[in-house]
Amino acid sequence: MQNSLISLRDVPHFDDTADVLVIGYGIAGVCAALEARRAGGDVLVVERASAGGGASALSSGLFYLGGGTAVQKACGFDDSPDDMYRFMIASMGSENADLVRRYCDENVSHFDWLESQGVPFERTCYEGKAVFLLGTEGLLSTGNEKLWPYREIARPAPRGHQATGEGESPGNVAMAALTTRCEDEGVRISCDSQVTALIADDTGKICGVRLRREGKTLHYEAGTGVVIASGGFAMNPDMVRENIPVLPDTAEPLGSPWNDGCGIRLGLSAGAATNAMEGVIATASIYPPGQLIKGIIVNKFGKRFVAEDSYHGRTAAFISEQPEQRAYLIVDEEIFAYPEIESARHQLVDGYENIEEMEAGLDIPAGALSRTLRQYNVAARKGEDPLFYKHPDWLKPLENGPYAAFDISFNRSFYLFMTLGGLEVDSDARVLDKKGRPIPGLCAAGACTAHIPKSGKSYASGMSLGPGSYFGRVAGMTLMSQ
Amino acid sequence: MQNSLISLRDVPHFDDTADVLVIGYGIAGVCAALEARRAGGDVLVVERASAGGGASALSSGLFYLGGGTAVQKACGFDDSPDDMYRFMIASMGSENADLVRRYCDENVSHFDWLESQGVPFERTCYEGKAVFLLGTEGLLSTGNEKLWPYREIARPAPRGHQATGEGESPGNVAMAALTTRCEDEGVRISCDSQVTALIADDTGKICGVRLRREGKTLHYEAGTGVVIASGGFAMNPDMVRENIPVLPDTAEPLGSPWNDGCGIRLGLSAGAATNAMEGVIATASIYPPGQLIKGIIVNKFGKRFVAEDSYHGRTAAFISEQPEQRAYLIVDEEIFAYPEIESARHQLVDGYENIEEMEAGLDIPAGALSRTLRQYNVAARKGEDPLFYKHPDWLKPLENGPYAAFDISFNRSFYLFMTLGGLEVDSDARVLDKKGRPIPGLCAAGACTAHIPKSGKSYASGMSLGPGSYFGRVAGMTLMSQ
Repeated sequence: MQNSLISLRDVPHFDDTADVLVIGYGIAGVCAALEARRAGGDVLVVERASAGGGASALSSGLFYLGGGTAVQKACGFDDSPDDMYRFMIASMGSENADLVRRYCDENVSHFDWLESQGVPFERTCYEGKAVFLLGTEGLLSTGNEKLWPYREIARPAPRGHQATGEGESPGNVAMAALTTRCEDEGVRISCDSQVTALIADDTGKICGVRLRREGKTLHYEAGTGVVIASGGFAMNPDMVRENIPVLPDTAEPLGSPWNDGCGIRLGLSAGAATNAMEGVIATASIYPPGQLIKGIIVNKFGKRFVAEDSYHGRTAAFISEQPEQRAYLIVDEEIFAYPEIESARHQLVDGYENIEEMEAGLDIPAGALSRTLRQYNVAARKGEDPLFYKHPDWLKPLENGPYAAFDISFNRSFYLFMTLGGLEVDSDARVLDKKGRPIPGLCAAGACTAHIPKSGKSYASGMSLGPGSYFGRVAGMTLMSQ
Repeated sequence: MQNSLISLRDVPHFDDTADVLVIGYGIAGVCAALEARRAGGDVLVVERASAGGGASALSSGLFYLGGGTAVQKACGFDDSPDDMYRFMIASMGSENADLVRRYCDENVSHFDWLESQGVPFERTCYEGKAVFLLGTEGLLSTGNEKLWPYREIARPAPRGHQATGEGESPGNVAMAALTTRCEDEGVRISCDSQVTALIADDTGKICGVRLRREGKTLHYEAGTGVVIASGGFAMNPDMVRENIPVLPDTAEPLGSPWNDGCGIRLGLSAGAATNAMEGVIATASIYPPGQLIKGIIVNKFGKRFVAEDSYHGRTAAFISEQPEQRAYLIVDEEIFAYPEIESARHQLVDGYENIEEMEAGLDIPAGALSRTLRQYNVAARKGEDPLFYKHPDWLKPLENGPYAAFDISFNRSFYLFMTLGGLEVDSDARVLDKKGRPIPGLCAAGACTAHIPKSGKSYASGMSLGPGSYFGRVAGMTLMSQ
């Protein structure tokens, strides 16, 4: 598997030519292709699998969108671009401020665009705590909007928009609609095609790709440029080990088999900068059921370290930083339930008559958990959490023994993960080199670029399909306007 | 220069013995010594220099304290421990939540304790923007309290408490008072003494130190334990280069010549964990005068990347992350002034009749700075900053040419720095090993431990002397209560 940059001078002849070549036919690629086509381009998508869809089609079909979309309005939520921006910047950092501002300001029209392409969204909202939906509701809270301190910085609103499909996976519904539209509009697709190199002309502009298809090496020309949209690198064990040492062997990647970082390596070969390569969103949620959020999460020293009402990916990120990556969910009889996310495989360690027994059973230093629980209970009775400001809705003293403990350790339960790092891009989806300059003729979008949230601490479900779809469109427009 | 761990079995005999040995006679060491002495201990401080004071005596004498101290109250500020905690956790992260909670809850009494030791604080407040005070005011805003989003999370209050001394450096005044008190109370001091190893008994407990003094190797016994309080590592070029690659050659360390990380290396030899070793607070402030905050700061692509009303250390941290570490302060004729911090040596690049000329002069891509300024001015006229929420007090359209640009690049101006990383400790000032367990007999405090703010983005002036003095006291109390 090669990922290199070759010179136009070394290309014997071009086997095909288009205005815009798109590498990857997932959410970012399909949206890039649609916009480049609408702008009048001859567009050729090169896809490694035998059909389009990628990791997006395997996903739960959640788009993080807001600012007052039609679904939010229909469900009675009064979101604004500014609230969305403030939440995103406060939780995810200001590194990409102009890119985030553009995303938030354009979100309502981007939602309308997705619907106009045939992606269906129900005007219904799921009010409970869920990681993904079993029903067809169109709206769900999927991030840390209600978490302190974010709830004090921006008015919370649910922003996870789920594509709707009867009896079908929502991600697949969205991708089927978009790929159908692409083909209806005359975008050409070359499947079973593995790009092995970018081609640069003498000025350094990216002007084509080399690929392997059916045992042959082919060269395709790109008149205006290339869009890399080939997903993350969760399926590349070497890249994961090198970049994300925090992940234990038990962690399992989410995505398509082709999410092996090939697009990132293509970008690197052209001199691209990467960002947040250590970033990972891992998940093994304690909820549903929501009542478990009323428990406390402690480390092996019996100390709390995260607000239990955090988004599951944030909780996981904090667990990953604890001594020996150990963590326990402690509940009392009143709220006892088994976590419902089966893939997490959180084990019930045991039930205990009192906290002293639990300390012994969990090998927590004697007195440490008792002290934590005593302080927690005193404050919880007043509806307060002076350490982490867990929302009063989830606060109750844990005083109805017997107690139980679930082992939710990062290296003992099974955490699923996606990678967050990738190529550095600007708000026009142009790939940047190590000096911050756009590489001519090269755009990128989706999970092969650095996500807006650079850590599981700030991820929200839908932050892959949402920005991936929007900046995919931007990439197509950028190349056609040059 | 050795920093190792040796076995008690290899110690020929002890040349001296005490209950508590304190390594370093700066702010953390002096406070540790005072509390251990008050608890009845025989205390011996081992100091490498020929006299006490360390970097603390060279500093501007600012303690970050709040929650409603006597100075805050006298100056009319209504601070609370909870507001202080919320600000600190929101800006500095929740990693050390219990430690920060303890600090904030105990801050009012800690201030009283400092005064009772003879450290003087005037009941006066400086209202302007300053990095350090030329006058003797006792209170100053020294952090990001008024910066968005923190101003929405916690009620801002000035928390920089400056020790007062007529015609003397405030840091020296504070240290002179504390070292005098120490000696009055019978703390023993061994100057010109370089600790070269910790001594551990067969159980792993730290029970003494080996040191060099006047050409001799000596062994001192510690009956209850050792406090490492020997400062940061800014003066160790190898450690700085290895841990803080972001610093350019032009950056200059602040501190005493002995801030070479010896205490961190002693801790490492005993199996200690470190934290935030890449953390650095660098500074080359654009203010005073405050009017310059009404300018905009852009990178080499003409883009803003930080709220210009940030604390100077935060601004520096963002500048350090920009392409080629380049940044410019852009002002118009109305607010033009020269930055007053001389050590920064910010150069006036030139004056320009219009923005197009400035783009050419600064080698910013044509049109980029014009676009930034146009967007900034449109919003500033409405008293808004939709990208970074700079406080309306500092917002004005920059439309009165001619314009001027100062080069405030991280690698062209002169940034002074201190290190923020160090030994990992718990809220009892006990040094933790890599599995998170306290190392028996070993405490640490001050700049040889990881600061509460782990980055210049969240540092506030006084975050060294403030927590250094408080957790120094905690270290002394912890060892004497064991």
